[in-house]
Amino acid sequence: MESEGRGERRLTSSLARKFERGDEKVVVGIGDDGAVVQTTSRTVVTCDPVVEGVHFTRSAPPNLVGRKAVNRNLSDLAAMGARPTFLVVSVLLPGWLDSAGRERLFRGVRDAARAGNCTVVGGDVARTPGPLVVTVTALGEAPRRPLCRSGLRAGDALHVSGPLGGSALGHHLRFKPRNELGCWLATQKAATAAIDISDGLSIDLATMLEASGGLGAILDVDSLPITAAARRAAQASGRDPLSHALGDGEDHELLFAVRGSLAAGGPLGSRARRPVGQVTAAPGIELRRRDGSRAPCTVVGYQHDV
Amino acid sequence: MESEGRGERRLTSSLARKFERGDEKVVVGIGDDGAVVQTTSRTVVTCDPVVEGVHFTRSAPPNLVGRKAVNRNLSDLAAMGARPTFLVVSVLLPGWLDSAGRERLFRGVRDAARAGNCTVVGGDVARTPGPLVVTVTALGEAPRRPLCRSGLRAGDALHVSGPLGGSALGHHLRFKPRNELGCWLATQKAATAAIDISDGLSIDLATMLEASGGLGAILDVDSLPITAAARRAAQASGRDPLSHALGDGEDHELLFAVRGSLAAGGPLGSRARRPVGQVTAAPGIELRRRDGSRAPCTVVGYQHDV
Repeated sequence: MESEGRGERRLTSSLARKFERGDEKVVVGIGDDGAVVQTTSRTVVTCDPVVEGVHFTRSAPPNLVGRKAVNRNLSDLAAMGARPTFLVVSVLLPGWLDSAGRERLFRGVRDAARAGNCTVVGGDVARTPGPLVVTVTALGEAPRRPLCRSGLRAGDALHVSGPLGGSALGHHLRFKPRNELGCWLATQKAATAAIDISDGLSIDLATMLEASGGLGAILDVDSLPITAAARRAAQASGRDPLSHALGDGEDHELLFAVRGSLAAGGPLGSRARRPVGQVTAAPGIELRRRDGSRAPCTVVGYQHDV
Repeated sequence: MESEGRGERRLTSSLARKFERGDEKVVVGIGDDGAVVQTTSRTVVTCDPVVEGVHFTRSAPPNLVGRKAVNRNLSDLAAMGARPTFLVVSVLLPGWLDSAGRERLFRGVRDAARAGNCTVVGGDVARTPGPLVVTVTALGEAPRRPLCRSGLRAGDALHVSGPLGGSALGHHLRFKPRNELGCWLATQKAATAAIDISDGLSIDLATMLEASGGLGAILDVDSLPITAAARRAAQASGRDPLSHALGDGEDHELLFAVRGSLAAGGPLGSRARRPVGQVTAAPGIELRRRDGSRAPCTVVGYQHDV
């Protein structure tokens, strides 16, 4: 971390010790004006913040806030099929977070980085008069053929990597990014496109369809895996569990498209091998029931951002 | 920029157009889960935020806020001797910043990126209940031999790239990062270490000395270049202009060390070729006057961070 002020210099050495993991690809680590890292010829870079009052509440355990800040970005790398390598972390500390809380926050960052097999190489810690903000930038090794949002073609089968919905009940802090799956998909010629489901299936699917030139899709909603949390949320809200699965957001599962066959084996569970829909040339998203009935899908998403 | 919510999706395409500059090293740009960029075998990465109420006031012109957010990071790359390549930008937008202000902010980011010959390839825009925050992560191509804070040895001559002090009077928003100089220094075997003066000469020098194993320094204070702004600030504060040059911070000049001779020519002005001090084996910083008198230097810095 860059040294700013004497207090932070002390903090910096403590962070350097905390984040140290003997990564031989780190040429210059925390404590200089910048980190120097070994990179391959193509690097994926992504940056997302988590903001108190927007992405978490003050009552969230600080270690889970740190974890979410890292995993949100690792999930973006997963969607590109990139292997996580390095993180830089900017933390804006409000007065209400005491040193024990700060410690737990950094531990959450560290543990998520370790779980993702990547190294925190730098960043910055500053005081703020506003909410707690943790902004992580993640670097990853790009696969030969990155998975893009724009790769969809009519006829592709749509898959999701796991059950959806109800993430506000806790999953949004505890999800595991699908990096192993993303890296594997990038090796599969049959995988044509992927996106991280962060705003909700319907809006993220709409984003992919738009990025792919204005295509449409049919979702076989009876095939959609739905979380127990979404079913509980539905009981509480009196809504159809499906509406939670389509719109809750922060699932951080991968939505991906397949043309032809994926190899057997790999980290793809049997459920995720069953398609949940299909890309169509006609624009718009339709929801299809098992009995063949169809209805247009209203695109809704979790609008925590602009 | 990652797409989150429909409003942001519209913003994303507008940003993609705004930041487009036909950089052939950008394989996948703004608008996917992450950017894919071409990198060399060693990359420098650095990340610093600017926060309303900490690094600028609400009355600061938004374009200068965007510019500062970029240039703070380019200055860190300069101190490592790295050539800027790519930026990712996370913006937390408060309610008070209207769309015209936001537009000016992004224009400031874009213009500073262009001036630094690097490309904005991604990031995130989110609403915040708190202050305006712009967090830039800068990537750079590492030189064969990066300039580190830890390279000082006793006997090295100390130099600064330009006049110091009084940055609060406007320079902190308008400084030009010393990337050309940093890249050139990294080619010079005689250059042993460098740091970006962000907290003030005395504290940043202390940081270098500490990073280099606990060395000391003598500063020839009558040789220190001091800005007109520092002299004005001194008139207002009734303090010695020197105290502003030593402690004001946010100069964003380079403090660097030389053992032997730098090549003639290059982007180093004649003033910056004259040393302003020397590294000593004995720890502590001393201030030496032209008449030979010495006094210990109290290390002070601009404590805008932790």
